[in-house]
Amino acid sequence: MAAVRRSRLTIDERRDQLVRLGTEIFAQRPFDEVSIDDIAAAAGISKGLLYHYFPSKRDFYVEVVRFSAMEMEALTEPDPSLEPRARRSASLARFLDYVESHAQGYATLMRAGIGSDPQVAAVVEEVRARIVDRILGGQSYAGDRPPAALRIAVRGWVGFAEAASLDWIDHRGLPRDGLRAILVSILGASVEAAAAVDPRIQTE
Amino acid sequence: MAAVRRSRLTIDERRDQLVRLGTEIFAQRPFDEVSIDDIAAAAGISKGLLYHYFPSKRDFYVEVVRFSAMEMEALTEPDPSLEPRARRSASLARFLDYVESHAQGYATLMRAGIGSDPQVAAVVEEVRARIVDRILGGQSYAGDRPPAALRIAVRGWVGFAEAASLDWIDHRGLPRDGLRAILVSILGASVEAAAAVDPRIQTE
Repeated sequence: MAAVRRSRLTIDERRDQLVRLGTEIFAQRPFDEVSIDDIAAAAGISKGLLYHYFPSKRDFYVEVVRFSAMEMEALTEPDPSLEPRARRSASLARFLDYVESHAQGYATLMRAGIGSDPQVAAVVEEVRARIVDRILGGQSYAGDRPPAALRIAVRGWVGFAEAASLDWIDHRGLPRDGLRAILVSILGASVEAAAAVDPRIQTE
Repeated sequence: MAAVRRSRLTIDERRDQLVRLGTEIFAQRPFDEVSIDDIAAAAGISKGLLYHYFPSKRDFYVEVVRFSAMEMEALTEPDPSLEPRARRSASLARFLDYVESHAQGYATLMRAGIGSDPQVAAVVEEVRARIVDRILGGQSYAGDRPPAALRIAVRGWVGFAEAASLDWIDHRGLPRDGLRAILVSILGASVEAAAAVDPRIQTE
């Protein structure tokens, strides 16, 4: 019966299923330690069939990263019913939960190694750009486009969040909500610091 | 006469000279666009002699990065005669001057590509660790070792400085001193945010 159900999956559904499985595999083990055989074995399919869906381990990984990025972005989608500070705080709690439960995958992705593969790096860079846009979308400023100081400060904050969370999963020693409080506070400070150098930027 | 002088250089001196030349070359042109022939031509030596000093372009680049890191650290060495905020502000002005005058090299190093080569990444990671230690050395806290919240916040700030300065050299639109003011302000905010979650940390 399971086999029958399996056979009814479309190619896209099967690919999706494999990518979801990949997020679990790469959340726990570094890219270099996972072989195509491991992935095929975990999926209960042959290596040949796996290659039918993904031409290489790298292509599979790029899709896993793309899916993880979507998943993380959906998880951290701001809740419009909350006031700004609580909204950020809630998003950041979910971001840190995600980082914590995908520690190995997050570290692999954000560090030198496969994370610097041009296609993988492009996905990461797109995610950063969307996070920056999301934050800028919630800010008030005079003019059509965000002033450079605001964009630079928000981009800086994304760098802060990445570096701080990598240090956190490496060494711990701080509860999740401690790091969350720091990130919320630095985001506020970033907008204020940008507003101090460019009066077109409004603080809350 | 020049040839005579040249021949009197020791191997180490000649290597140093080549590495200094490399910092100029890679400050202006991306790693992938510079060939071994270009480097040999700029140095006025044969490709064979260049290979005598450095087994590959990558080895040469690793040495250039190591030298640049030392140069940047020496340049940004805090001046103990200044009070803390002015001291940071002076160091950051020199850091941003360095980034601006080595824009191409900095961007190549900090982005995906050769910057993610394990040896290159290790040099970058060592520099980050030394910057974090330098800042932590100037902070007051109760206990023998910096509390995790402080270390994470300072490491976050380094990520902020990197991401903000990369955005700045890419898109500009903000004078150097605008970015410097933002970085000084966020460093202060980082220590304050850490102190808010861990009372062992003292703010100025």
